[in-house]
Amino acid sequence: MKKARSPVEPRGKISESTVRRLSSYLRLLHEADALGQETISSEELAERGGTTSAQVRKDLSFFGSFGKRGLGYSVPELLREIEGILGLHRRWRVALVGAGKIGSALFSYRDFQRRGFHIQAVFDSDPGKVGASWGDLRVRHDQEMDRAIREDAIDIVIVAVPAEAAQGVVDRVVGAGVRAILNFAPTRLRVPESVALRYVDMTVELEGLAYAISGERLR
Amino acid sequence: MKKARSPVEPRGKISESTVRRLSSYLRLLHEADALGQETISSEELAERGGTTSAQVRKDLSFFGSFGKRGLGYSVPELLREIEGILGLHRRWRVALVGAGKIGSALFSYRDFQRRGFHIQAVFDSDPGKVGASWGDLRVRHDQEMDRAIREDAIDIVIVAVPAEAAQGVVDRVVGAGVRAILNFAPTRLRVPESVALRYVDMTVELEGLAYAISGERLR
Repeated sequence: MKKARSPVEPRGKISESTVRRLSSYLRLLHEADALGQETISSEELAERGGTTSAQVRKDLSFFGSFGKRGLGYSVPELLREIEGILGLHRRWRVALVGAGKIGSALFSYRDFQRRGFHIQAVFDSDPGKVGASWGDLRVRHDQEMDRAIREDAIDIVIVAVPAEAAQGVVDRVVGAGVRAILNFAPTRLRVPESVALRYVDMTVELEGLAYAISGERLR
Repeated sequence: MKKARSPVEPRGKISESTVRRLSSYLRLLHEADALGQETISSEELAERGGTTSAQVRKDLSFFGSFGKRGLGYSVPELLREIEGILGLHRRWRVALVGAGKIGSALFSYRDFQRRGFHIQAVFDSDPGKVGASWGDLRVRHDQEMDRAIREDAIDIVIVAVPAEAAQGVVDRVVGAGVRAILNFAPTRLRVPESVALRYVDMTVELEGLAYAISGERLR
């Protein structure tokens, strides 16, 4: 694999919140690019990305990217640069565990593939789901999972099984060599320190909203 | 509506990250409660919630909750207290806009209802989806949305429409008086300052993982 083409070598120094902001700038850059927009200002990135233009300039100058005064940043250049920093200049091999409703919604989520995340295999333990055709794939029995993950050189596993099954799945995929997991099961998971784990917890977001508007209602 | 029964009145002082931690403690307390566990230590909350026990004690003492030395916190008491702080002691009226795959997965997500978030109405603009039965509900045409949101006194709207339709939906529901929005559409949205907006962006999480493991692969 080629080295990321970032002019400085910030790898290992970027905080999770910076990575999130870069990811959010990237989304805006893709939108701008699709509309044929050639340059973008730090103000535009800030306003639409929910931060300040000073923060945008700081984030981007850290990676050696400098907008031109009065012109802003070149959309295609900045796009390629952030993709390089985030490791999106390659195709990521993803397996999905859990062929229920959430799994099905994730499978058909077009943005994953567009952004380089390709679902290569789908597993479920329910014999009623095994064998079903999902696009070009067939849902496979989770007994095949450990071997298939090794053979298919899966990089990232998406866990979309019930809460009580999630830790077992994670232990197995970590055992099979996976170093990155995205968890949709509503439970906390334990992984070794060498494994990157992210949660998508929709109830946490709803509870945050409930808190925000209960305050309003109490005033 | 009754006032939250928190002994102090921290409303308005809690940061988003504290609210997220409280939400995460709440999930652990629900799990412990379901298993019949009566007390829980700050260490256990910390370990499973991905923080430190000092942070747990700080968060909880801020709300007047003190664990007993050697005994920890009472699970049912702490559960009720955090629910009170987050505004979960009531039933929240939720509308879902977008009856596609993501909408369908969200609709059948059992945890929402368990935690007090009740989907009262589903809207879509596709005549092929309007009229379909979803549980006890029927999918309604989004022309009815503005009026229905007012009549049903909807508190929170979940947006699960394509990116290009999302801002239009949000403008309408804000116009209809909604003050809390959970957005699943892969785009940034503009809302007035008085409106609480949260994003669930699955691609951002995958990109964070890609970054985490590209670093590893480059070493």
